[in-house]
Amino acid sequence: MNRGTCAISGLVVLFVASISPGQQVDPLPSWNDGAAKKSILDFVRVTTAKDSPKYVAPAERIVTFDQDGTLWVEHPMYTQVIYCLERVHVLAKAKPELKDVEPFKTVLSGDKAAIAKLSFPDLEKILAAALSGMTVEEFNVEVKKWLATAKHPRFNRLYTELTYLPMQEVLKFFRANGYKTYIVTGGGQDFVRAYAEEVYGIPPEQVVGTMEGIKFGYDKDGKPTLIKEPKLLLNDDKGGKPEGIHLVIGRRPYAAFGNTAGDQEMLEYTTAGAGARLGMLVLHDDATREYAYGPANGLPDSKIGTFSQALFDDAKKNGWTVISMKNDWNQIFMWDKK
Amino acid sequence: MNRGTCAISGLVVLFVASISPGQQVDPLPSWNDGAAKKSILDFVRVTTAKDSPKYVAPAERIVTFDQDGTLWVEHPMYTQVIYCLERVHVLAKAKPELKDVEPFKTVLSGDKAAIAKLSFPDLEKILAAALSGMTVEEFNVEVKKWLATAKHPRFNRLYTELTYLPMQEVLKFFRANGYKTYIVTGGGQDFVRAYAEEVYGIPPEQVVGTMEGIKFGYDKDGKPTLIKEPKLLLNDDKGGKPEGIHLVIGRRPYAAFGNTAGDQEMLEYTTAGAGARLGMLVLHDDATREYAYGPANGLPDSKIGTFSQALFDDAKKNGWTVISMKNDWNQIFMWDKK
Repeated sequence: MNRGTCAISGLVVLFVASISPGQQVDPLPSWNDGAAKKSILDFVRVTTAKDSPKYVAPAERIVTFDQDGTLWVEHPMYTQVIYCLERVHVLAKAKPELKDVEPFKTVLSGDKAAIAKLSFPDLEKILAAALSGMTVEEFNVEVKKWLATAKHPRFNRLYTELTYLPMQEVLKFFRANGYKTYIVTGGGQDFVRAYAEEVYGIPPEQVVGTMEGIKFGYDKDGKPTLIKEPKLLLNDDKGGKPEGIHLVIGRRPYAAFGNTAGDQEMLEYTTAGAGARLGMLVLHDDATREYAYGPANGLPDSKIGTFSQALFDDAKKNGWTVISMKNDWNQIFMWDKK
Repeated sequence: MNRGTCAISGLVVLFVASISPGQQVDPLPSWNDGAAKKSILDFVRVTTAKDSPKYVAPAERIVTFDQDGTLWVEHPMYTQVIYCLERVHVLAKAKPELKDVEPFKTVLSGDKAAIAKLSFPDLEKILAAALSGMTVEEFNVEVKKWLATAKHPRFNRLYTELTYLPMQEVLKFFRANGYKTYIVTGGGQDFVRAYAEEVYGIPPEQVVGTMEGIKFGYDKDGKPTLIKEPKLLLNDDKGGKPEGIHLVIGRRPYAAFGNTAGDQEMLEYTTAGAGARLGMLVLHDDATREYAYGPANGLPDSKIGTFSQALFDDAKKNGWTVISMKNDWNQIFMWDKK
């Protein structure tokens, strides 16, 4: 090595030193310091530092996130259900006979009290009708079109603006550390895929959701098509979450985030693996900035997104961390400036 | 910029120039020059050159490969079927009563002629028994263990040594150009996942296959488990291939490789998309180095991996390229030196 090369090496070393450890930026600025933030930072550090005994190879770095109530607002009703209810009006234009058939008749009446009282089997009929009978491409376009204008009743914002800033930071932080971020949702897989890439930076192949049947065929011009069918292939909720994870990913995640009893099995499956594992649950305890519902910890009961006392107790037993929206997040939405 | 920085920049430019365009290596050395090789090189060039009107963004770059007969040998019988037949002997140790129950009785008799005559429903019973009743982890271990010793009857090599070198080059070439390589196989998804990463560099989440049901539950120690069930969720063959692609990937591939009528719908779906698309079919016309079967183009008929004359004609009509093993590949296996 001659002196010239030494000089260059020296410059490179100085340059690298000047941009790395000295200027460490907080990757989770909308998280208050506390146990929740610390558990995320610690987990990522011990699984990615090369000299860590709990190091996880990059190919194995999988983290899964429930969507409704974990990444974005799920109250007063799941966005997909609102989409389906509004979609009934579009369907009725093509099929006017729906006006005389329940439960469509009730939905078309616009009677909010009656709609709120629809039974679960009735809602299933509405979902099946609204989510099938078109090509996968047509469905994707319809959902995107609806999301471009539909607004949340309380916040008067697009639904896609109701993602939690602290969770967006978590998604980016995991990805910056070589983790593949997956959504694992009880919502329809195709519904969530329509916006997950734009809204969360999560591509369609990293969305695991409730799977409706699709049927290959040809249109009238002989062009191959995939038509969405009113048939349930996988209910990606509770035990269906680890099942969906195996079907689509085929690896056990190292970390999982959820917010209800529907996520319990995903967290159990994730944290039962060897090595460092992370299980986290968002508790909605901030009625002022978002919503407050449990019924864990004395919070009001809820039909949408139930965080039971049993889940709260299990979290403690299993070493899962409960995230308090009220105490752990200094900002909730991108537009909700401090 | 001072003179020192200029000198460094100059060195870097010289260094980069010395390793790139001047030393272009053929990415497909076991392919003879011809239409097949050219169609692959041209497709990758026009979809990845930034200034190409047919440029495809990296996130959209998906290429799918059938496995049996496209990436590795499928004659005289699919590897997974051989595994299942041999597995019956293991099952009979735990359940001796199988010795008196057909079709297990025939398999256990070792009578090769009788085994070869087993009906399709009988084979389905054998597959269901051999591929279910254990956790997904146990199954993975069993398959790996079997593949470590089981040998092909003609080549006397491990099955995992019977991948086609030209196709291994294609996989690497696509990946080097930012494509995500997926296997889309009629074989069991979990069976292929057990070796796809080691054998092809394809991770579990990029294997789409025939999906058997799995059931979440708990073992006697209360540990969460996923048990494989004898239930067909998706038959990933023919129209099931584009359906499986949508379920797991959620994007239309830009290129697809297959070798039988079971791959036709995948190629139709792939090449019906806008922009540059590539459809390719491997024709087994080399009885000396591998096998020869069609019945397209006057080749002998086959029950395993049928390349019909109709498919051969459709390929021409649809602009798909037929790969002749005999003429397009100068080497077939890694160990089969020229």
